[in-house]
Order: sequence, then structure tokens, then C-alpha cells
Amino acid sequence: MVRTSHSQLDTPQAVREAARAGTLTGQTSGLAPGYAQANLVVLPRELAPDFLLFCQRNPKPCPLLDVTEPGDPVPRRAAPQADLRTDLPAYRVWKDGQLIAEPGHLMSLWRDDFVAFVIGCSFTFEGALLRAGVPVRHIHRGCNVPMYRTNIACEPAGVFHGPLVVSMRPMRPADAIRAIQITSRYPAVHGAPVHLGFPENLGITDLSRPDFGDPVPIEPGEIPVFWACGVTPQSVVMAARPPLVITHSPGCMLLTDLRDEELATG
Amino acid sequence: MVRTSHSQLDTPQAVREAARAGTLTGQTSGLAPGYAQANLVVLPRELAPDFLLFCQRNPKPCPLLDVTEPGDPVPRRAAPQADLRTDLPAYRVWKDGQLIAEPGHLMSLWRDDFVAFVIGCSFTFEGALLRAGVPVRHIHRGCNVPMYRTNIACEPAGVFHGPLVVSMRPMRPADAIRAIQITSRYPAVHGAPVHLGFPENLGITDLSRPDFGDPVPIEPGEIPVFWACGVTPQSVVMAARPPLVITHSPGCMLLTDLRDEELATG
Repeated sequence: MVRTSHSQLDTPQAVREAARAGTLTGQTSGLAPGYAQANLVVLPRELAPDFLLFCQRNPKPCPLLDVTEPGDPVPRRAAPQADLRTDLPAYRVWKDGQLIAEPGHLMSLWRDDFVAFVIGCSFTFEGALLRAGVPVRHIHRGCNVPMYRTNIACEPAGVFHGPLVVSMRPMRPADAIRAIQITSRYPAVHGAPVHLGFPENLGITDLSRPDFGDPVPIEPGEIPVFWACGVTPQSVVMAARPPLVITHSPGCMLLTDLRDEELATG
Repeated sequence: MVRTSHSQLDTPQAVREAARAGTLTGQTSGLAPGYAQANLVVLPRELAPDFLLFCQRNPKPCPLLDVTEPGDPVPRRAAPQADLRTDLPAYRVWKDGQLIAEPGHLMSLWRDDFVAFVIGCSFTFEGALLRAGVPVRHIHRGCNVPMYRTNIACEPAGVFHGPLVVSMRPMRPADAIRAIQITSRYPAVHGAPVHLGFPENLGITDLSRPDFGDPVPIEPGEIPVFWACGVTPQSVVMAARPPLVITHSPGCMLLTDLRDEELATG
């Protein structure tokens, strides 16, 4: 079988169909440019109210783009033609907080009590940064963004509690200012930074050793700028060790029908 | 003669009338809260086109709120009831770049070839910062903001050229981020910062020795945040050593009828 060329995957529908057909099994970064990609968290119904409240109380790390009805695999606001059981390239299944499988679809796992949370992703604001001429180090280097657990506790809700996870992008000061302006327009995808300049204020002792992703160098004259990160909800969910959770596999996001620019406030 | 109590000077009109009557001869900071105060530069007509172009090319230090017709002492857009010859508490008169007088009015000096430039002032965005709970160090200490000549050249225009002057406010990172968001809404009063973090990048070697205003301490965990400053146009005009220029006296601003919030972009 001939694998779909990624150059053809320029619409959300095409990306989702390729994932559904099994011809796209890897990362979605760069596909369907201009459309918002999203993190996925699927929980059994009994945990959904607590997690919804957690997201409401922690909008910077957990900006909700859509929440499905129990059992419904269609994110009707973010991607009304999508099927969350098949349309991501890869998933992760967690049992009691342990990773037990990384399937390409959820057809045999889906339950009629599953509630899906579609959560905004920094890809959207990174596109806006690049279009504005603000360099993004990890994209330039072709690696993952460095992410760090902080000493800042999220606002707890029910069984869900844990530290804020941040992503870090080093920038020259003028670029940092512009990046703050630009990302402030995107509260639905983490919004403005939560910190800049002093990693130790966040409890980060060594920027060269991120907890997730890859380290990137900070050049002289640059400052580290920290954004709330979509890994936060995942790590919070895992810390609660629920009986069953399903998430997207890292980098294998849901392609929504929302345009990045639709998510801008002005 | 009983001097007007400042507590009564809560409208632009009242402040201007007190200045006109000679009962207000000092600084205007804090008067008529909610209304935009402005810098004043008055030039003979032959220098006005160059200065207008200079302001157009350097909008961050020189945000124009109004420019009068030659000879007209009324800033018809910013304060249509004001008389620029009388309504500021004190003026400075410069001949060939030298300060020669500091009169309380311009009735005997005004000429029918004078063009007045009304330039936005950081008081407006400082009010917005305080209302948002962002502390402003020099206001808290009751002193003037520290200002520094930088090694950044303004875009020249005709006879006008010179370095950008910046004001500095030390802030905790989270406050700096909020301050960038807030001041970005006010391009008519210098807008977003031009720099943060590295004074040496601006050619500033010692923050404790400002070129204008008063030094303020930078506490541990704070970063210096730099805004383009309305002293820039004044220093640029002086450097050109024109035969005659009139400005406001430091801190003795024009009270406009523009509300601070009218100057916000959104």
C-alpha cells in the first residue's frame, strides 16, 4: 500500500482521513497549516465533571476547545466530521496511571461512557509567532519544545491536582515582547506567557534538563520565556491514577476544523 | 489671592483654567484623573514639516495626539477649549538650543507662525497599570521616572535626529507580562515596551544614574522594563539647535479633553 504523501495533507479532513486509513501514523506537526491542532484527553463519565472543573479553574494550561457528550466520538464544535476513535494517528491508553498500549485506533476500546476533552495546543500560537517573524528555537532546530514541571500548583478540582507544566522558548527581549503581544491574542491555546526570566522562580533548577521534550540552547542576550503547557492536563490526569484514560500519543494531535485565526481574540 | 486647591482640579477644564489664572504653577501629575496629559513642543512653521515627519517615523517616542495650524493656539482635536499660550502651568523657551526662560504663559511670545505638537505622555498608561494592580515603582516612591539616553538612533527626518530616550520601570516578570499587554493597548502614549532585561543592549551602563528623572531601586527578582519616552522629541529638537522652540516645563503638562480610555485600541 502506498503511504499518503504528507504534502497532500493540507486540510484537516485529509489528515484525519489518512489517520483513519492508517496511512498516517506519526506526528502531525506542520500538517494542514492554518488549522488548529489539539490535545485529547478521554475519561470515563464519572471523572468528567471533576476534570471539566479542573480545566475551568486552570484555563492557561487547559484551554478547552470542545467537550463531547458521553459516548459521542464526534467533537461537534471543533471538528464536526471527525471521529475521535480513529482520526488521530496514534493514541495512548493508561490504566491506573500506567501506559499499557499505544494503539492506532480506539474502535475496540471505545465505551459509551467516554467523555472527550479537546484542548488547545501551542502549535497555533507558534504559527502566529513565525508569521510575525519571531524565531522559535525548537522549530528552527527541528526538535520538541522543552517542557518543565514547576513548583506552581494548579488549582485542584476533585481528584485532579498537580503542578503546572510549562514550555520554554528562549527569545531576544524585543521578540519576547512581540511574542507576549501575539500569544495574548490566543487565550484558547495557552495565551500569554506565565513567566519570563527567572526559571528558579518556577522551581526549575536546570533548563538544560527538561522534564519532557528536548533541551534547546539559550544564546547570550536571550531570556527564557515560559508558557503554560498542554502536558499539564495529561500529567494531572495521570497523577490521579484513574482506572482508565486515553490520550493522544505525543505529537499525534487531533486536527480540528478551527482555523488558528478563529481562535484569536482580536 | 487664595490658590486653587488641587483637590478641586478634577477636570481638564479646571486644571487649564487654574493654569491660565496663574493659581496652578506646578506639576500636573495626578490632576484631572482619567484624562490624558500631553507633552508640548512648539516650533516655527519652517521646522514643522521636518518635525512632523520625525514623529511619523518614530511613533513610539513621539506619538502625536494633535498638531495645530500655524498661529492657532488651540489644539482643536485634543482640547478644543484650550489655549496653548496660557493653559499649561509653566513653559520653557529655548533659543539656539539653550534654555533662556521659564515663563508662566506665552502671551507676549506667541507668533503667528508657531505650530504646536501635542504628544502623548506615559501618565496615561501608568494609570492603566495602576488600575490593573501593576505596581509602578517611581509612583510608589513619589519621585520622577528614571530616563536614559540609549545607543539606538531615532529615524532621522530633515534637521531632526538623535538617540531614543527610554523610561524604565522595574517589575516582577508576571507584572512585566501584564504591563506589556496593557501598554500595547495604548500606542498613542508610547505603547508597548521597546526592551526589557538587558540595559547594556541599549547602551545603558548604570541604571542607578539616569540621564533624566530619579533613580529607583530594582529589587531581586525584578527586571528593568524600558518604554520609549516623550523626552525623546524634546532632546531631538534641542540637539538641532533651532533658533526658537517652546516646550512645556518638566511635569507641567497640557491637560487634554481626551479620556485615557479613548486612547486604548480595544
